[in-house]
Amino acid sequence: MPSQPFSGVLVPVLTPFTPSGEPDTGRFVAFCRWLLDQGAGGLAIFGTTSEANSMSPTERMELLDHLIEAGIPAAKLMPGTGACAVTDAATLVRHAVGHGCGGVLMLPPFYYKGVSDEGIFAFISGVIDRVGSPALRLFLYHIPPMAVIGYSLDLVGRLIKAYPETVVGLKDSSGDWSNTAALLDRYPGFAVFPGSEVFLLEGLRKGAAGCITASGNVNVPGIRRLYDNWRGQQAEPLQAEITKLRNTLQAYPMIPALKAVVAHYHGDPDWAAVRPPLVPLDPAQAATLFADLGRLGFTLGERPQARAA
Amino acid sequence: MPSQPFSGVLVPVLTPFTPSGEPDTGRFVAFCRWLLDQGAGGLAIFGTTSEANSMSPTERMELLDHLIEAGIPAAKLMPGTGACAVTDAATLVRHAVGHGCGGVLMLPPFYYKGVSDEGIFAFISGVIDRVGSPALRLFLYHIPPMAVIGYSLDLVGRLIKAYPETVVGLKDSSGDWSNTAALLDRYPGFAVFPGSEVFLLEGLRKGAAGCITASGNVNVPGIRRLYDNWRGQQAEPLQAEITKLRNTLQAYPMIPALKAVVAHYHGDPDWAAVRPPLVPLDPAQAATLFADLGRLGFTLGERPQARAA
Repeated sequence: MPSQPFSGVLVPVLTPFTPSGEPDTGRFVAFCRWLLDQGAGGLAIFGTTSEANSMSPTERMELLDHLIEAGIPAAKLMPGTGACAVTDAATLVRHAVGHGCGGVLMLPPFYYKGVSDEGIFAFISGVIDRVGSPALRLFLYHIPPMAVIGYSLDLVGRLIKAYPETVVGLKDSSGDWSNTAALLDRYPGFAVFPGSEVFLLEGLRKGAAGCITASGNVNVPGIRRLYDNWRGQQAEPLQAEITKLRNTLQAYPMIPALKAVVAHYHGDPDWAAVRPPLVPLDPAQAATLFADLGRLGFTLGERPQARAA
Repeated sequence: MPSQPFSGVLVPVLTPFTPSGEPDTGRFVAFCRWLLDQGAGGLAIFGTTSEANSMSPTERMELLDHLIEAGIPAAKLMPGTGACAVTDAATLVRHAVGHGCGGVLMLPPFYYKGVSDEGIFAFISGVIDRVGSPALRLFLYHIPPMAVIGYSLDLVGRLIKAYPETVVGLKDSSGDWSNTAALLDRYPGFAVFPGSEVFLLEGLRKGAAGCITASGNVNVPGIRRLYDNWRGQQAEPLQAEITKLRNTLQAYPMIPALKAVVAHYHGDPDWAAVRPPLVPLDPAQAATLFADLGRLGFTLGERPQARAA
């Protein structure tokens, strides 16, 4: 069974932007540190929630450079390195491996639709071969609601077989529990992370390594409580509690909603900015969301502080 | 009515790759020149058929540099400059405008699904504002079968109104004639190009500027014949003839099929290579395709020759 360093609650970290629309390095570093201080098991920076594909490869690599310079442990980082071009993906992976990141999270090439398993295999294989590093730990990012194409059960098996030391896990953001369960059944020892904490308890009972979840940006402690106590008597109520918060959040456009929550609860309005094609919550939506959260007794903990590296 | 320089048969040029998978500059330049010699009204390089999104922005810009150095007239070029990141798109547009390209063809940001017209407007607006050049002529690239999201009729109107000198046309690859017809009805003077020659005659009768079509890679002369004679008595049979060829081609995976045709009829096997996630036609498919084309009496004209610039 290949080694992989991640478990628990991984967060696809929101990316803050400045009022002029550029990635906000200071807020990003502080927020990453805050998430780790809150108990995140790893940071899946540059995922869907991070608006990674709304940034150029250079912007993503510069943000990663800043995290490393600021002392965020590379072993805790699982940057998204997906791209439509095999050359872009290889550049991003090489950069992440060069920094010693614990792993990378890889979208399938998402422009063409209706592509074959053979074609996706050739893409992933092309990236791995171009990078050519035994240090690479690659996690497949299965998210058909956005990418439309995805990693079929058979393709996952084929990739594990071809690259047993490299293809070590998968984030399942299909929202389809039966797919997650099938992965856990078919590939024991392969690190499967449901893409939502809604499936955390069921996942852990079947051998999941944890979860990688957008709402981790605002609820590491709650999700962590279930992760730490999933064999205990309080597991079901803890699951119910985090599911309730998740359902409240995802009744809104999820990424702008999460940014609005951070902005509001940390008193830092700039955090609400998104890059197009996303748009911020309008004030009425935001007010309703905060009222919904108030009814749940939601709190966010202390605002992250920028510190010297 | 804003000026725009394109009309007739525009070709989204196939991109040749070397056996090691890198863009093949020599074959690309020769093929572009050959298409213009055959009567193409313009070259929409870096479209879907070109596997543009399977190349990094740098690879795309270097290929464009080579075309310009080789003396291909910039005014005939409409490079695809779409990207998911506003910063990548702005970089590509700035580069194309810097070379004096006749226009650029712009995909909507295609990663997130279910985005609003407001968000797509903000993206296009962000690109135009970042580039800030009065020389920019931007054509919208509407292709919901790949991008899933697209430019609604209302959004097109809003963009024309906001940027009347810049947003000058649209390629409609929806495959939905009623959408093309509605664009032509609602926005007279706006340069609409159906994304298939199947709609060329109907399009021209309603004021279309021509078409931008994948099969132009192997049939500029046939499509051009209709374009030059669409008011004549032979228009309907000419349309029927090119439609028949198109339908034959698109019974196969279109991009690998077109590359197989170029490779086969020009006796240049390397041309068949594609980048993942596409896969080449298998030999059996290719044999059936060539037999189908043989029954239509298909020919391809002389093989393009590399020449000194």
